[in-house]
Amino acid sequence: MRNLKLTLEYDGTDYSGFQRQPNGITIQEVLEDAVREVTGETVHILGAGRTDAGVHARGQVVNFASASRIPAERLPYALNTRLPQDIVVISAEEAAPDFHARFSARSKVYRYTIENRPFPSPFSARYAYHWAGPLDLEAIGAGAAHLVGRHDFAAFRATGGAAKTSVRTIHRMEVTREGDLIHLIAEADGFLYNMVRIIAGTLLEVGHRKVTPGDVTRIRASLDRTQAGKTLPGRGLCLMEVKY
Amino acid sequence: MRNLKLTLEYDGTDYSGFQRQPNGITIQEVLEDAVREVTGETVHILGAGRTDAGVHARGQVVNFASASRIPAERLPYALNTRLPQDIVVISAEEAAPDFHARFSARSKVYRYTIENRPFPSPFSARYAYHWAGPLDLEAIGAGAAHLVGRHDFAAFRATGGAAKTSVRTIHRMEVTREGDLIHLIAEADGFLYNMVRIIAGTLLEVGHRKVTPGDVTRIRASLDRTQAGKTLPGRGLCLMEVKY
Repeated sequence: MRNLKLTLEYDGTDYSGFQRQPNGITIQEVLEDAVREVTGETVHILGAGRTDAGVHARGQVVNFASASRIPAERLPYALNTRLPQDIVVISAEEAAPDFHARFSARSKVYRYTIENRPFPSPFSARYAYHWAGPLDLEAIGAGAAHLVGRHDFAAFRATGGAAKTSVRTIHRMEVTREGDLIHLIAEADGFLYNMVRIIAGTLLEVGHRKVTPGDVTRIRASLDRTQAGKTLPGRGLCLMEVKY
Repeated sequence: MRNLKLTLEYDGTDYSGFQRQPNGITIQEVLEDAVREVTGETVHILGAGRTDAGVHARGQVVNFASASRIPAERLPYALNTRLPQDIVVISAEEAAPDFHARFSARSKVYRYTIENRPFPSPFSARYAYHWAGPLDLEAIGAGAAHLVGRHDFAAFRATGGAAKTSVRTIHRMEVTREGDLIHLIAEADGFLYNMVRIIAGTLLEVGHRKVTPGDVTRIRASLDRTQAGKTLPGRGLCLMEVKY
């Protein structure tokens, strides 16, 4: 069997997340269906990030075992003709036998986007959380810096995740502006359930000065979910890259 | 009566164009319905550009007569709560009595977007025309330069337009790149039916070297629609700005 690795982009708006589940259509099942059409095999596809409903990806990585002899470089063409336009395979390669999209990942990069202007744009409605009021970008950046490093992120963890420990290492937090869009970029060795969305909600409170940048350390150290900001909606979140 | 002027953004994907018509829902009627809900009046809304099905706007301008006393600066809030998320009023003001969104316009700026990468992106599918092969941006720019000025653009005009003359002045043609997206920006005193989409189709042929930049002058001078490139789809087109 070959171990095939794919890199994907998708607009998650119309999906109930990546991972197969009883209610609602998922990226995983649509992709598994396309693989079945191409190779005739019923495969189980593993995703690096189990993105939630409405969450997007520009660099999701998956792998699956296949006996098919189709050359890896032909796979994107074969799959994309069968996939809906909101899921695109951008590359494929044969990976080492022990490669696992999720467990082999060294780090993942997620981006949360806030649209900051008087009215939401029709072009960003599916890809950003809208905030009309003034936001202090410098304060957001200062608050974000308090999250970098190896910490217990229990305060930024929703119930429902399966992780045994809530200690993670955030390698990088960046705050950038692109026109009316504010991007919060987080790179970590792993993320807890809803962690980026709760961090975004907390940094938004820093941005409109409900809390100070320094409060972010206090909130983190409290290990108490009720101290952090609200969970922003999935549509503003995008899995940008998985590093191996 | 007051003469109210609105500036709009819309994602045209789900509409049969701006102008009211018997088959299919249009921006005009959705906007007129929203004004009726806000002011109680049945108004007739005039648009600066009669964008076609699937065409977008980031700076459409409209005007209409109203006896309503609602302050102009409140109108965007009142209308946006009644409009679907793919149509947004970004500003409103009271215009001079003789202001006419279309006839008062000095120039309009349209942008045509081509996505140039191996596979179409799920994030651009509604907003760009996809081209997988190599494109020579310098050649496109050189070809575009041959269109600037006052000329008869009959070769770039689809049948079905009502304009009496096909002479127009293109003030500016710009070719810019934003990641995988190539933007063709055209500013003119007016545009013929499908003019930007035919120009984009012709410049695409220059880009993949089916014709040379110099051929653009020959094509224009022929006044013959069959000499120009194909009409690219509406989804890549966006009305950016109307200048008065």
